[in-house]
Parts: sequence; C-alpha cells; structure tokens
Amino acid sequence: MSVRLIDSLVTTEPLAELFSDRSVLRAMLEFEVALARAQVSLGMVPPSAAEAIAAAARVENFAVADLSRRAGRAGTLTIPLVEMLREQVRQESPLAADFVHFGATSQDVADTALVLLLKRAQPILENDLRRVEEALVHRIEEHRHTVMLGRTLLQAAPPVTFGLKAAGWLAAVRRSQRRLTSSFLEALVVQFGGASGTLAALGDQGLAVAKTLAGELNLTLPEAPWHSQRDRLAALVSACAILTGSLGKMARDISLLMQTEVAEVAEPGGEGRGGSSTMPHKHNPVGCILTLAAAHRMPGLVASFLSGMLQEHERAAGGWQAEWPTVADVLQGTGVAAASMAEVVEGLTVDATRMRSNIRATHGLIFAEKAMMLLSRKIGRKEAKKILDQAVRGSALAQRSLSDVLAEIPEVTRHLDGEALRTLDSPEDYLGATQSLIRGLLAAERSGKKEG
Amino acid sequence: MSVRLIDSLVTTEPLAELFSDRSVLRAMLEFEVALARAQVSLGMVPPSAAEAIAAAARVENFAVADLSRRAGRAGTLTIPLVEMLREQVRQESPLAADFVHFGATSQDVADTALVLLLKRAQPILENDLRRVEEALVHRIEEHRHTVMLGRTLLQAAPPVTFGLKAAGWLAAVRRSQRRLTSSFLEALVVQFGGASGTLAALGDQGLAVAKTLAGELNLTLPEAPWHSQRDRLAALVSACAILTGSLGKMARDISLLMQTEVAEVAEPGGEGRGGSSTMPHKHNPVGCILTLAAAHRMPGLVASFLSGMLQEHERAAGGWQAEWPTVADVLQGTGVAAASMAEVVEGLTVDATRMRSNIRATHGLIFAEKAMMLLSRKIGRKEAKKILDQAVRGSALAQRSLSDVLAEIPEVTRHLDGEALRTLDSPEDYLGATQSLIRGLLAAERSGKKEG
Amino acid sequence: MSVRLIDSLVTTEPLAELFSDRSVLRAMLEFEVALARAQVSLGMVPPSAAEAIAAAARVENFAVADLSRRAGRAGTLTIPLVEMLREQVRQESPLAADFVHFGATSQDVADTALVLLLKRAQPILENDLRRVEEALVHRIEEHRHTVMLGRTLLQAAPPVTFGLKAAGWLAAVRRSQRRLTSSFLEALVVQFGGASGTLAALGDQGLAVAKTLAGELNLTLPEAPWHSQRDRLAALVSACAILTGSLGKMARDISLLMQTEVAEVAEPGGEGRGGSSTMPHKHNPVGCILTLAAAHRMPGLVASFLSGMLQEHERAAGGWQAEWPTVADVLQGTGVAAASMAEVVEGLTVDATRMRSNIRATHGLIFAEKAMMLLSRKIGRKEAKKILDQAVRGSALAQRSLSDVLAEIPEVTRHLDGEALRTLDSPEDYLGATQSLIRGLLAAERSGKKEG
Amino acid sequence: MSVRLIDSLVTTEPLAELFSDRSVLRAMLEFEVALARAQVSLGMVPPSAAEAIAAAARVENFAVADLSRRAGRAGTLTIPLVEMLREQVRQESPLAADFVHFGATSQDVADTALVLLLKRAQPILENDLRRVEEALVHRIEEHRHTVMLGRTLLQAAPPVTFGLKAAGWLAAVRRSQRRLTSSFLEALVVQFGGASGTLAALGDQGLAVAKTLAGELNLTLPEAPWHSQRDRLAALVSACAILTGSLGKMARDISLLMQTEVAEVAEPGGEGRGGSSTMPHKHNPVGCILTLAAAHRMPGLVASFLSGMLQEHERAAGGWQAEWPTVADVLQGTGVAAASMAEVVEGLTVDATRMRSNIRATHGLIFAEKAMMLLSRKIGRKEAKKILDQAVRGSALAQRSLSDVLAEIPEVTRHLDGEALRTLDSPEDYLGATQSLIRGLLAAERSGKKEG
Repeated sequence: MSVRLIDSLVTTEPLAELFSDRSVLRAMLEFEVALARAQVSLGMVPPSAAEAIAAAARVENFAVADLSRRAGRAGTLTIPLVEMLREQVRQESPLAADFVHFGATSQDVADTALVLLLKRAQPILENDLRRVEEALVHRIEEHRHTVMLGRTLLQAAPPVTFGLKAAGWLAAVRRSQRRLTSSFLEALVVQFGGASGTLAALGDQGLAVAKTLAGELNLTLPEAPWHSQRDRLAALVSACAILTGSLGKMARDISLLMQTEVAEVAEPGGEGRGGSSTMPHKHNPVGCILTLAAAHRMPGLVASFLSGMLQEHERAAGGWQAEWPTVADVLQGTGVAAASMAEVVEGLTVDATRMRSNIRATHGLIFAEKAMMLLSRKIGRKEAKKILDQAVRGSALAQRSLSDVLAEIPEVTRHLDGEALRTLDSPEDYLGATQSLIRGLLAAERSGKKEG
Repeated sequence: MSVRLIDSLVTTEPLAELFSDRSVLRAMLEFEVALARAQVSLGMVPPSAAEAIAAAARVENFAVADLSRRAGRAGTLTIPLVEMLREQVRQESPLAADFVHFGATSQDVADTALVLLLKRAQPILENDLRRVEEALVHRIEEHRHTVMLGRTLLQAAPPVTFGLKAAGWLAAVRRSQRRLTSSFLEALVVQFGGASGTLAALGDQGLAVAKTLAGELNLTLPEAPWHSQRDRLAALVSACAILTGSLGKMARDISLLMQTEVAEVAEPGGEGRGGSSTMPHKHNPVGCILTLAAAHRMPGLVASFLSGMLQEHERAAGGWQAEWPTVADVLQGTGVAAASMAEVVEGLTVDATRMRSNIRATHGLIFAEKAMMLLSRKIGRKEAKKILDQAVRGSALAQRSLSDVLAEIPEVTRHLDGEALRTLDSPEDYLGATQSLIRGLLAAERSGKKEG
Repeated sequence: MSVRLIDSLVTTEPLAELFSDRSVLRAMLEFEVALARAQVSLGMVPPSAAEAIAAAARVENFAVADLSRRAGRAGTLTIPLVEMLREQVRQESPLAADFVHFGATSQDVADTALVLLLKRAQPILENDLRRVEEALVHRIEEHRHTVMLGRTLLQAAPPVTFGLKAAGWLAAVRRSQRRLTSSFLEALVVQFGGASGTLAALGDQGLAVAKTLAGELNLTLPEAPWHSQRDRLAALVSACAILTGSLGKMARDISLLMQTEVAEVAEPGGEGRGGSSTMPHKHNPVGCILTLAAAHRMPGLVASFLSGMLQEHERAAGGWQAEWPTVADVLQGTGVAAASMAEVVEGLTVDATRMRSNIRATHGLIFAEKAMMLLSRKIGRKEAKKILDQAVRGSALAQRSLSDVLAEIPEVTRHLDGEALRTLDSPEDYLGATQSLIRGLLAAERSGKKEG
Repeated sequence: MSVRLIDSLVTTEPLAELFSDRSVLRAMLEFEVALARAQVSLGMVPPSAAEAIAAAARVENFAVADLSRRAGRAGTLTIPLVEMLREQVRQESPLAADFVHFGATSQDVADTALVLLLKRAQPILENDLRRVEEALVHRIEEHRHTVMLGRTLLQAAPPVTFGLKAAGWLAAVRRSQRRLTSSFLEALVVQFGGASGTLAALGDQGLAVAKTLAGELNLTLPEAPWHSQRDRLAALVSACAILTGSLGKMARDISLLMQTEVAEVAEPGGEGRGGSSTMPHKHNPVGCILTLAAAHRMPGLVASFLSGMLQEHERAAGGWQAEWPTVADVLQGTGVAAASMAEVVEGLTVDATRMRSNIRATHGLIFAEKAMMLLSRKIGRKEAKKILDQAVRGSALAQRSLSDVLAEIPEVTRHLDGEALRTLDSPEDYLGATQSLIRGLLAAERSGKKEG
C-alpha cells in the first residue's frame, strides 16, 4: 500500500497505511473476532465457533473491490463484510456461522473499527510531536539571546529573540497536544449497542458482553453506546485542527522568515527536498508548505464533521455516514503537519547575523517607542510625540539612524544623555521580560498540568 | 482500481477511477506529451524527441509508491514525475531527454492535469443528472394532481401535490446544473506559465506554445496563466456544492416521507440495497442517506477550498498544495449524490392513498386557514380568528373533523353554507396556483436560458 | 440596548447586551483603568493619574459612532479609544494623560476586553445549561420506563424508552459542558505584552505590571502573552460548537418527534410561542428551530475562527482582526441554543400513549430481530432468516401483526411456544440493558470527573 | 445608526446601515404595502385599506426592542411585525386591518425583505469594485514595464512586471464581479407563496397578485416560490466569497510587498490610517488587513449558508432561520473588502527603484533558469545542470553575481558569448510574454463577455 498520488501532499506513509483497505478491514474483523471471544468467555458461544470465526477473519479472505461496491449499495461497509465473513465461516462450520456478528449492529463494527484506527494513530502523531518539542527546546536554549526583529502586522517592531519566538511555538504546541491527548483518552471507547442501542438481542447479557468486548479490544467501556452522540469524535477532530493550527502558525512564521528578502532561517534541504523543476537556485520551504496546506484544509474538515452532529434518533441518516473520510483526512493532515515540522525544526538553520542586520536596516526606527518612553518622562507625551514623529520622518528620508537624528535635536539632547542615545538602538537593551517569558514558556505544560 | 473502503460511501466507481493513481498519472503524462508535440509543431523540438517522450510516457513505466514518496519530499508530484520521465526517455534518446517538460513549471503540469480530470468528470456527472431530471419529469406528470400534506416547520400545512413538490426539486436541480455547466466551461482552461507565469524560458514563443498546447489537449486557452488566481476552480467547487445541496434537499424530503410514520414514498430496493445487518424488516433510504452524507461534507470542503484562495504572489505556499484532494472529494461527493438520486427517483414508489390518509388524519385542521379566509370576509378577521381558535381546539381535543365542529357553531353556519363547509376539507379545492406553478417549473430552464 | 432585528433569531437578550457597544466599551475601559491602578500599586504612576483615568473612563464619555468609524480607519478599536480617553483625561490633568495606556499595545486592550466579555458570558450559559440538565433529569426519572420506537436511519427499530433517549441527551450535554468549562478556564487569561510581546517599554517591571493587572481584573496570568497564539480561543469556540451540536441533536430529535404524523412530544407553547401568521392550528417547534438554526451556523463559524489561526509573527495581518464578531456569534449561538432547549425541556409534553400506539402501528415488525434470535437458536440462522423474511412480507402486506403471522407457520410453532409468541411484540420485554444504561448515563459526569 | 463596535473592522457604514433595524424594518413594511397595493389593483382590497396600511407602515411606529423580543418567541420577525402593523391599522380603520398581510405567509415577508436589501447592496458593492478596477487599470498602464521579482513559494523567481501582477488582480476581480452580477440577477426575485407555497388562500388570483407585487417592488417574478429551495441565495453568497477571495489575494500580495524587508509598495496613509498605538514609526497595511480579515471569515460563512440548504419540505426547521445574519455578514464582508481595496489601490505607492534593487540583491540567481536554457542548448541539460548547480552555490557563497561567476567557467565561456552573459541578469531581457499577457488580461471581460 502506497500513498495515493492525489493525496501525496496531505498524508504520511504510516497514516496512509493506517487508513488503507487492509488496515480498515483488519480493524473491522478484529471487532468480530473479539466479539465472538467475549461471548465465548461468557458461555454464550461455543469456543470452536470463535475459533472458526477467528480463522476466517483474515484480510486475505476478502475481495476489497467487491466489498466496497456492496458497501455503496448497502449504505454501510458492515453488511457485506458480515455476509462475506459468515459465508467464509459457514464453509468450515455452519454452526459457527450463526454466531458471526452475534447481537451486534452495523454501526458497532464501523464505529469500533474507527476507534481502533484512532488508537493506532495516536502514537504516530505523538512521536512526531515529541520530535517537534525536543527540537524546539534545543533551538530555544541555543537562541535564547539571539535578537531579531519583532514583526507586527507584517511591519518591523521592537526586537524579540528567536528563543522567545520559538518558545511561543513550543508552548502552543504543548497546549494543543495536551488537548489532543485528552481528546484521545475520551474518544477511545468501544461502540456496542445492537440495533437500537439497548443490546436487547443479547437479553440480560448485553452489558457483560460489552464489558468483555472492551477488554478484548483494550478500549474503554463508556457509560452507554454513542451511536448518535458524536461529541467525543467532534472534540478529537477539533483538537487535531487546533494542533495543526499551532503547527501552521509556526510554519507560516518560518516560511516568512525564509523569504529571499528576509533570509533569517532555512529549512533543511536533503535528498529530494525543496528543489524546483525549473529553477536550480530555489530552496523552497517544503516542510512549511505541507504544514500550511494541512492547516488550510483543516477548518473546513472540522466544519464538515460538526455539521454532521445533528444525528437523528438512534442512528443518523447521512450525518454518520459522512464521518469516516473526514476523520481520516483530519488525522492524516495533523500527521503530515507534525512530521513536516519535526523535520523542519530539527534541521532548521538560524542566521543570527542576518537577523541582526535586518534590525540594523530599520535605522533604529523600531526603537522610536523606546525613545518616546524616555522622552515622555522628561517633556511629556505630547511634546515627545511631536519630536519623535519628525525625527522618524527625518531618519526614514535620509536613511540615517534614528539615534543620530535625535542626537542633533537640542530638545532631545537637553534631556537624554549620550549613553541613552548610544544604547537607544541596541536590541539587547530593549528586550524587556524576554528571558523571564522564555523560562515561563519552557516550564509551562512540561509537568503535564495545565495553567488553570 | 476499486473504491477504497474508507471512501465506500462517498464516491462512485467511475469517479474513484477518475482520481485513481493511474488516471492522475495519465493526465500528467498527457500534458508532457502534448507539450512536446506542440513544440514540435512550432519547430522547437525535433519530432523524434516528441516520439521518444510519448513512448516513455506510459503509466506502466512509473512506480507509484516511489512517485508519491518523492512527491511528499519535493512538495509537488511534478518534480519526481519529470525526473522519472526524463530518465526513461534518456535510456532511449539522451537528446530527447533534454526536451522533456521543456519551458514548463511544476504547476503547469499539476493544474492542467487536474483540469483534464475535471473535463472527464463532467459527462459522468451530467449523465446522472440527466437521469434525475428525466425521472423527475415523469414523476411530476404522473403525480401532478396527487394531493399530499404541505409541511412547514415539520408541521402539517395546507395541501400541495406531489407533482408540485417534485417540480420544485426539478427546477432547483436544473438551475444548479446550469450553474455547474457554466463553471465547467470557465474552469476547463489550460495552465501554462513557466517559472513565474511569463513563459520567459520560451523566449518569444511562449504564447504560441501555450495556444498549440491547449489545442493538443482540447482545452480553452485563457487570457493568462492562473497559477495563483483560483477563482475559476472556486466557482466550480461552489457550484458542485450548491448542486449537491439541491439534491440533498430532495433527499431530505424523501427520507422524511419514507419515515415509518409517514410512509408516503419509498426508495427502490433491489440487490443489496436498504437492508439491515440485524433487522429483517428494515427498508432503509440508502440512496437518500448517501446523498445527505455528501451534502453534509460539502460545505466544509468548499470552505477548505475558499480558504486557500489567498495565494501568495506567483505561486502559493500552502494554499495551492491543499487543493487536489479537496477538489477530488467535491467532485466525488457531487457524483455520488447525483447517481444516488437518479436511482432513487427512477425507482421511487409513491403511495397516493397514504398521502390522502395522512391529510385526513389531521381532521381538517390544515384547512383552518381556508376557513379563516372565508369567515373573515363575512365577520371580520378578529371575530373569525376567535371562532377558529376555539374550533381548532375543539376539533383537536375531540378528534373530530374541523368542518364538523364548525358546522355546529351558529356564527359559522349563519355565514357559510353547507357546500362551503362540505368542501372545506377537500384538498383538491385548496390547491391555489399549484397547476400553473408546475407548468412554470417544468418550463423553466428547459430552454437553457436563465430566468433573468 | 435591544437585540438587532437581523439577529433576532440567533441570540438572547443578555448575550446581545454583553456584546453591545456599551458593554464592549466598558470592558476596554476597564482594562485601561486596571492598568493604571496596577501601575500605581507598583509606584510607576501617581495615584492621582489613575484616579483621573478612572474618572474619564466612563462609557458616557465616548461617542460610539465616531469610535467605530475611526476604528475602521485605524484597523483597531483601541487606537481611537485611547486617543479619546487621553483627550478626556488631558482636560482634567495633562500629566495624567501621559499615563493612559502606559506600556500597553492595542491588542492588549482588545484581547483582554474580549476575555472579560467571555468571563461574563460563562455564567449566562451555565445557568441555562443547568436548567437543561435539571429538566432532563426529571424527564428521565419520569419516563424511565416509557416505551417508544427506536428509530434508525429514520426507520422504525426495536424499542427504547423515552428515559433512555433523554439520558443520552443529558450525558452528551454534560460532556460538552465539561469541555466548555475547561476551555473557559484555559481562555480566561489576561493579554499583556506591549508592542512586540516583550513588555520592553516597561523596562524590568513588565511582568510585575502584568501580574498586578491580572489581579485587578480577576483573570489568570498566563505564562506569556498570546498575541498570535490563539489556540485557547480556538478551543473555546470549538467547545461551544460541540455543545451546540449536542443541543442541536436533541432539538432535531424533538422536532422529529413533534411532526404531525409522529406527535409523541410537544414543546411548551405559551405567550407568543409557536403560532403561525396564517395557520391557526399550527404548534411549531420554535425552541428546537432556534437551536437548530444555531447549530447550522456553528460549524462555519468554527471554520472561520480556525482559519485565522495562522497568525503572522508577533501580530497578525487579518487573522486576528477577523476574530471578534466570530467569537461573539459563537457565544450568542450557544446561548440561544441553551436557553431555547432549557425552555423546551422544562415544558416538554410527552405523550406515552401515542408512543405506544406508534409502536403498535408497526404490526410488530420491529420485533423481527427478536424473532430471528429466538428462531435461530432452534433451527439455525439461515433457515430462520428465510422464514422471517417471508413472515415480515406477509405481515406488512396483510397489515397483520408479525406474531400472528408467525403463529400460523408450523416451523415456528414447532420451536416457539405460545408464551414466546405472545410476548414477542411486547416492547417491555425487549429493552435489553435499557435500565442499566440509564443509570450509567445519569451517573456519568455528575461527579465532575470524566470517564477516562 | 452607526457601525457596532464589535463589527467595526468587518463592515462599512453604508452596509451596516443597510442591515440596521430601520432598514430591515422598512424593507419588511415595503412588502406589506406593496402587497396591499397589488391587491387593490386587482380589485381584491379597497383602495382606502391600502392607504391605511401605507400610512401605518412607517418605521417610527414600531418599537424595535419589542419586535425583536417577540420575534425570538415566535421564531420569525414577521409574526410580531404583522400583529403590530395590524394593530396600528386597526386604530385608523378596523376594516383595513383585515387586509394586512392578506394571503401572505411569514416567509414571504422575510425573504422578500432580504431580497430588497440585497438589491440595495448591489450598487454599493459595484461602486467600490468600479473604483478598484479603474485604479488597477491606471496602475497597470503606469507600471506595465516596471520590473520586479517574481516570487514562487515565497522565494525569488524570474522577474515579472508590476503591471503584469496588477493585471492578474484586475482580471480575477472582473471575473469574480461578473459572477456576482449574474448571481444578483438570479437572486433578486420576489418570494410569494402563502402558507404552503400554492397561494391557495388567494383562490385563483394568487399568481396575478404575485406578478403585480413583483412589479410594485421592482423585482423579478420567479417561476415559483422558493421557500425551501435556497440555491439562488447560495450562489450569491458563494459569489461574494469568491470575489472577496480575489480581493484577498490582492491584499495578501500587497501586504507582503509592504513588509519592511521588501518595501516595494505602500498603502496610502491619510487621516487615522495605519498608525500604531505605541510605535510612531509604523505604517500598517490597514486596508489589506481589513480585506484579509473579511477573506478569513468568508469561507466559514459560506459553509454556514450551504449547510442550511437541506431544507425540510415547504419550510425548514432551522436551516432557513439561520440565514439572515449569515447573508448580512457575507455582504458586509464583501463590502469592506471592496471599499478597502479601492482605497488601497487608488493611493498605492509603487517603488520601482526598490523593486529593481530587490532583484539585484539576488545576485542574478533568479536567472539561473535562463542560463540553464542557454547552456543546455549547447552542452545538453545534464551537463548544464551540473555547471549551474555549482555556479549557483558559488554565487551564493561569495555573494557575487551569477553572471560573473559563470564568466569565469571555461565550459561556459566556450559556449556563451560576452553579450549573452552581460544580459543574463537583465530583468528586461527575461520577461517572455509579459506584455502580451497584460494586453490579454486588460482586454478580458471588459466587453462583459466571458472567455468561454
């Protein structure tokens, strides 16, 4: 199973594999096998029947093309799957065939299979997120003091350090990951309700089967089936999108910093990465682009999922059937963002020299706020603003540094001494709480507790 | 190539095939072959080179797994594809290899390939839409006079006919289809701009190549490349979603009419259709469900596409790369809705008797408006309302027909004669402009002109 | 301040008031006053200046029309607000004017004001949600044993009880509310970062001011400013949408149950509720409709918010500026859903007789699954299915009860005794785990702990 | 009526006014007056009654707070409005009161009022779009030959001209506007159907009234009422979003070009525009930001509208009621984008010198593609690529121009003469079809015909 060409920019190999035919089929068959085993252990089904079911429930025994065609007719994948499985089992043991899918409904299989796939997706995502976090921690420590332009509304602003910027990314990713972990915990629950969600077909043994089944599958047993209450999945899907948003913000920042005219950081290149089909000089921000692509798709995918939540009665007509591909796309999009940013951050080149020269290229204009604060204290805000506005214009016009221009204005030199003017455009001297903030951001979430 | 299991409810076989690896690959290779041929015809490339390229550009020559993996590294499918193609060609003719992808950029291939796929999707959709329309016309003619409850806010309202209801569906589908046709017309344009959209690599022959290329591919040549102007695709995607919305409204109506308690219409059953894995008595509205599922996904998919429109400069970082799977999902969703509703409408069973008995079950309360109009004319609206409110309550409480209750009220019989009361709850006598509206709806759009 | 006509179906009075001009303005002014006071307590600002600022910071002093016009010019409401405030203060004390907005940036005011509004929204929402929950608990206890049709894919299915259905609603609302509470906890944090988020203008006192400011406003101090990390708000907005989805599912169920043909429950009427402008007999599901309207808008609003998350550097160009109306709409939509469903559930009429008669009207077909289970045990599944399929068809055609039809089939009576056939279509005898599930659902979340 | 503070960045004054209480109320009252007049002209209503209705139907006569509160109770604004109007009329003429809202239903009023508002929105939008187009045409003519960097994936690419870039913007806006015009044409239709859409209450005069009513209101009469077929509005809403997307793409480009490090263009400043509350040096891209904010909200708003399309039967429960604020937000968002970009483009400063120096700063690397084309012809692609890769690295490392580096490589000078190397990095010599493309883009759509 390889990644489909149409999906080649929106998934990763392990996640494409996870939602492949084999994997989907395997998850559904696991349900049927676990159900039979649970019923054996409760004395409802003969052990030999469960063995026959387990023997037949092998992916190789099922013709996928036939399955998907019949699923489209039936409105659910479970019906043809169960029919085929029963047929397989019957060839070995007509008795066992009667115990296939015993007391379950289509949705039990489909939903639980989806949950099993989600459970397998979790460590894949977490592994890449751990890489992102670890690499960010290194970058932060390394560049704690590396000054660079702050940028607000895409315009130069007073300086920050690259460490602070990266610490903001880190804390956001950690918060988003904590929410995702908590959503996984909530969503990894078995679905088992039978036709109407009462397990009536199993008489008074329904809950016992449900409990044993959950144990077999290593899933949590929820307080009741959730066939038309989809809030847990909705929360998971939203958490994925928010995490992808946090990764996407990082990708946007990095791709902007990689612009030819800015050139402060660079993604790692490496085999097949970042070239162009026509332009030999190009070094494209491919990891960021894949992340941004995922982040662009995500809000709409969440909307698709949420708009299916209004599910009718005990099983929805439409809202439920729309879920699978949306959930699969959301997980894969989150995965490609996490994997891409892991690679980006691990190999990121940071050009501290260029960062400083980009600050210098503003001629100190970004320190106008600082000059304003200093001068206001002496001559009042109104007067200070008048002088600054003029000095800023003068500096911009003449391409001279703001401190030089200010040093020629008597109202300024009367109040600010040479030292104040000399250090005016030193970025290191205008970083405020930067170091404390970095410490705070690094510490946050590390213990797994939220800030509330 | 079969439909993937995860997609089994959200596509059709022909459309899944259209977006399959083979089909995507073929469309990209068609571009490269057409480009070489166009350049041959302009004397820029030796004929033998084009032949060598055409010979190598066979789907079988490409390892899809390798392609998609390298696409994920490169951030575009084109780069590895061109590299592989060039390698293939080089084995036959080193000279010809130099003319592979000559003067084109990655996006030219990817966008034009997408357009070629869209062009092939159009007749598939149109064919099913034609079936929907033809079947609806039959239903309308058949049930022009078949009275049924009007239903507003899910409550019984004065009667309509099934023909009128179906005529509303038809006209909406026709309007939506007209918009889709016009969007296809606009969107089926070649993309060819080279690195920055100026075709500079081709010197002064860029536009000539573009024109010939468009001719080779049987696509329209737009006034300029559209590498970061995606409005045409956005319009197509939106038109698909609106059409799916129109089909979805029909599906919602039919699924509501199929409720056990309403039972006025039924989808056709047929092999593998509409059964349940547990309940032998079920006759599920599977075609409507698949359509509703598509309609639930569509708004979010449109949002995903639109939110990628803000594309940076001459090629976007993220917005563009997110498009392919979204467009493919939109087309497939529209297709499954059209195919499903074609089957539903062609085989729809309409139970005119049940429709009438559902009207009767309201005890004539839905004619309270009519009684109100009649009585108001005689005794004024205020007085009439007072009487009607009381009569309605009486009728509901006693489960007696409204006309019977009214016939016992002297203020009523003083003003309304027996004939008026007898025909009060005759649905045929309270259909207003129904027949004219049906004629108008049937006539609308048929000529292909819009109503403006 | 009244609800705008254009919004009259999508908000409530208290929430419309919360996002009114006066309320928004007040929240922004609170920030400025609290900032001055915090700075007084740290000795940075003379007490008299804070007093002058507090005196001027009265809603009455500001011309809203002028403010909003200038905000549109400035790209932020804060700039004109601060200018006006400073002008006001200057009239009393030119010195104090220099301390207005001291060390803060526009976004600090706007974001913190939004957080203050959110903090006020929380108890409004929670109050209505508490009403929903309490009313549901009553309904569940009352109708624990009230049998009604299960309905899957809008078709009749084996029975449930109304208590079970309502318990499903309750547990979903509780889960959704827990998530919302946790999102509020996370989101109610002060924003204070100054121009680039480093608080540089305040020298080494930035964090002390931040901490004191948070205390003044009774908000949590986060580990750092979050000017371009919007995940906390995203999580809140998503939690609102999911909660509205849970309420919307309840509204969909109730509106379907209120259909004329089903008529199992009814919303309370009351003054001005549920009538029609033309049809005196109508009793419309207005509360459900308002909830469904909110639920229809929500997924798109979430998408709008999420698609603004990719915020550039230290302050976004576009993504941030789009947030306010979206957040306001989301909160108001959630509020109208909660208030509407509180009213609906508190006054809901449940017609147990009609529920039973709707079951009876299926002629026992919904018990075919049960018959199947019973018969399979005796004669095998395949044989049982053949008999049942035939019996179901016979029952439907002849409009006779399934048990009567079965009682005439020798293969059946040979294996099932009279008692089994007599109780076959007794809904009470086919409820499976219903009562245990109700207990579980009622117990879940009550303790405030999640099930993980 | 002023713009609400919460909306101050997402609307314009004329459009906020259009959706104000007074304006909404006026549009609804216009319907009622036009209806009475139409019925007078058909002899169904006495002229004096219509006069009494017209006299009472004045905005001043209605208490908005009361109206919106009662609307929230009734689930529609029409019910309380008609009750109040009838009460007003009754005070003058009890007889006339009976003819208020005669034969109409709530939705007729609400939908037609919305259409009337849309009709008034159209010239407001078109006026600003005309300004955008005219200003763009000037910019294009002025800067037809002004060379600047092409930029793909946010990296420097071969040159374009600013005229070409602006021509791409222009053509997209024109296409989007054409679609919008066509959607307006389609959507500006009267809604008039009575209770169930059959106009039954008006006997055989329903269609005559509908036709006269449409004439009174200067709206088109559609072939039938469209109470639950919302495709026309959906098409309008989508067209608005696509247009906003086209404007947003322009805004993104301009805001990127305005970055401090790029500095190639600048928005006009002017009174209250673009300053910062803290940083005197800032010149913010406010017009672009407002446009981008609108473009961020739009996809979600479209999704909200589309997800309401699945409207039940003859009047929807939820989908319809959600429409008003969404449509109003979409129109206002489109309006603020059009007005903002009109101002931006009209006053845009273009710095041709900076554009050229940004090209020069790439050391000619963007011409590597050109060198590649030239060299490949002589020594084959493979060999050429090897040389170029090396030269590009050398140029980047040494910060020397690519042509200088190439001039030192014997394999190069052997094949390329001095002239070829001298003009290699002249942007004017590598513009390909730029001028033809500009001509084509300027010509497209001007005639109002589409390219198909």
